Amino acid sequence: MDMNKVSRVLKAMEEQGIHQMIVYDPMAIFFLTGRKINPGERLLALYLNVNGNHKFMINELFPQEGDLGVDVIWYNDIEDGVQILSQYVEKDKVMGIDKTWPARFLLRLQELGGGSKFVNGSMIIDYIRMVKDENEKELMRKSSQINDVVMEKLIPYVVKGLTEKELENKCRELYKEMGCEGVSFDPITAYAKGAADPHHANDTVSKGKRGDCVILDIGGIKDNYCSDMTRTVFIGEVSDRAKEIYDIVVEANMRGIAAAKPGARMCDVDAACRDYIEEKGFGKYFTHRTGHSIGLEDHEFGDVSSVNEDIIKVGQCFSVEPGIYIADEGIGVRIEDLVIITEDGCEVLNSFTKDLIVVPEE
Amino acid sequence: MDMNKVSRVLKAMEEQGIHQMIVYDPMAIFFLTGRKINPGERLLALYLNVNGNHKFMINELFPQEGDLGVDVIWYNDIEDGVQILSQYVEKDKVMGIDKTWPARFLLRLQELGGGSKFVNGSMIIDYIRMVKDENEKELMRKSSQINDVVMEKLIPYVVKGLTEKELENKCRELYKEMGCEGVSFDPITAYAKGAADPHHANDTVSKGKRGDCVILDIGGIKDNYCSDMTRTVFIGEVSDRAKEIYDIVVEANMRGIAAAKPGARMCDVDAACRDYIEEKGFGKYFTHRTGHSIGLEDHEFGDVSSVNEDIIKVGQCFSVEPGIYIADEGIGVRIEDLVIITEDGCEVLNSFTKDLIVVPEE
Repeated sequence: MDMNKVSRVLKAMEEQGIHQMIVYDPMAIFFLTGRKINPGERLLALYLNVNGNHKFMINELFPQEGDLGVDVIWYNDIEDGVQILSQYVEKDKVMGIDKTWPARFLLRLQELGGGSKFVNGSMIIDYIRMVKDENEKELMRKSSQINDVVMEKLIPYVVKGLTEKELENKCRELYKEMGCEGVSFDPITAYAKGAADPHHANDTVSKGKRGDCVILDIGGIKDNYCSDMTRTVFIGEVSDRAKEIYDIVVEANMRGIAAAKPGARMCDVDAACRDYIEEKGFGKYFTHRTGHSIGLEDHEFGDVSSVNEDIIKVGQCFSVEPGIYIADEGIGVRIEDLVIITEDGCEVLNSFTKDLIVVPEE
Repeated sequence: MDMNKVSRVLKAMEEQGIHQMIVYDPMAIFFLTGRKINPGERLLALYLNVNGNHKFMINELFPQEGDLGVDVIWYNDIEDGVQILSQYVEKDKVMGIDKTWPARFLLRLQELGGGSKFVNGSMIIDYIRMVKDENEKELMRKSSQINDVVMEKLIPYVVKGLTEKELENKCRELYKEMGCEGVSFDPITAYAKGAADPHHANDTVSKGKRGDCVILDIGGIKDNYCSDMTRTVFIGEVSDRAKEIYDIVVEANMRGIAAAKPGARMCDVDAACRDYIEEKGFGKYFTHRTGHSIGLEDHEFGDVSSVNEDIIKVGQCFSVEPGIYIADEGIGVRIEDLVIITEDGCEVLNSFTKDLIVVPEE
């Protein structure tokens, strides 16, 4: 267990009156213990107690090498894992429950009286995961550095006559070549009409043609941490209309980044992008939130949206990705960078240019 | 909704004193409604009430075409879906909960007092899914017919010098060619030492050599229903020892199938296989249960194991798959067929031969 992270969790538990907690989400468990265990339908539970009597319930089918830094309780398929777990909990104290814990386990723990009251405890870890430590920041930087390279290598392929799906597959190959474990999410590599629809899924028929915008929204996973960047490029030529839209989106992205600083609210970053796009008359074409937190998972808790009034803290990492999508005209532009909040603003993790790129036809 | 299936569920609910129930598992919902909705982190809930006041809570992000035969309650991301759901439930009656429902929803429903008592209600649907109706039986037959063909096409590749992973990929291709949606599970295509370890995962280095046994445990999904069959073949030649083991496993498989009939218990099928293998002196090398139920998912509720004393009913569908694995000798043999229980015994869904096959080296 990473006792640095666990102590932050225990402190928040005390502050919120949650005496004990069950962590189940495999990614939250990885965050705290460095162990990736996918339990399938079986019980998995990291039990944390503010008094330090932590236990880690693992099925014998998932043997772990080395010292986990926490007392492991092994159980097998013919045992009642929750019943065993219930012997270690404090039955007269509030119990925090992982929001993802399946009902089969929670109902059984309730039946056994494993707590005085059961509450959703996931916010505690979600808020801690939002703020990256130095090691995590370094991993986020490295992951995004690779993303810059993949973007550079991918762009020439937009004029190779590939379908969206073929371009996506090329993108996946590039992450593999760069030593990534995989992609952070299904890459979006969409031409014109597809780019103009933020809900479009890459298809196996559309190919790029002269004048098309191409949205490349891509990210990889390197050493468990995700990257996520979007650039929009053009094939052969760019219309005045598309160029106007491009410049507005870049400026919105820059304004969002400028608003990303400690003490501001997440909604202020959204407003910085949205107000500018509205001012330019394209407000109704910016149809999604401005961004999302990111780390071990591409989408983590903490939206950059108009309704999130949470105060931004040093160490948070999130995306700033305004866009304008005009379906009728087949124009879609999105520009996205990741930022890490610093003492006086933010560090932008992507250095790939935002200058307008027109890729010459071959 | 398939009112035939729903009425079986409602009858069981009445018998078990579960007045109302929330179904969440996407495969259980597909079973009852014919709709596949993967809600991700969002609320999905098919609310069933013995009085007939059924509701289907779906997020607006997952639009459904046509009439669902049930009152749909649409909600969106800025609404509290569980709070809306709680307005329809009977707060003074027992509430059955899907075993897979995430705690975030259950805790909220409990907070809102959405039932007099909360119990795990999944067994009701699990037991109903165990017994296939005529339409399901036909789909299971068709899926297994394809599996017979894939097995025949796959076997020649065991002498093509492929690694286990390459042989697996070939297998996946064959299901695609046959019009399957995918595989029922990661195919097992293991040579010798890998075959002798039932927990072995296909690797990227092992290739077949003369005298090797090759376990092919494969299945595809056709029109939503799963197949699953195992055959063990040999490369070039077979030792007397391996042949002896092969014959024992085939006989055990046949005895298991003979024991699969209405009125017997699931454990009787297991015993029919296990007793014979023990009698032949290989008991300690048969290290797993004899089989599992199958249908929309490869592994459904209802094991063929020594501890399952449930009485077998007409219409059940499960696998009979005894095996003998001797790690030291690199010999592993498993033979598996699917059966559907009939009035007086069972129908075997696989017709691929169990005669010993030695594939000539090329």
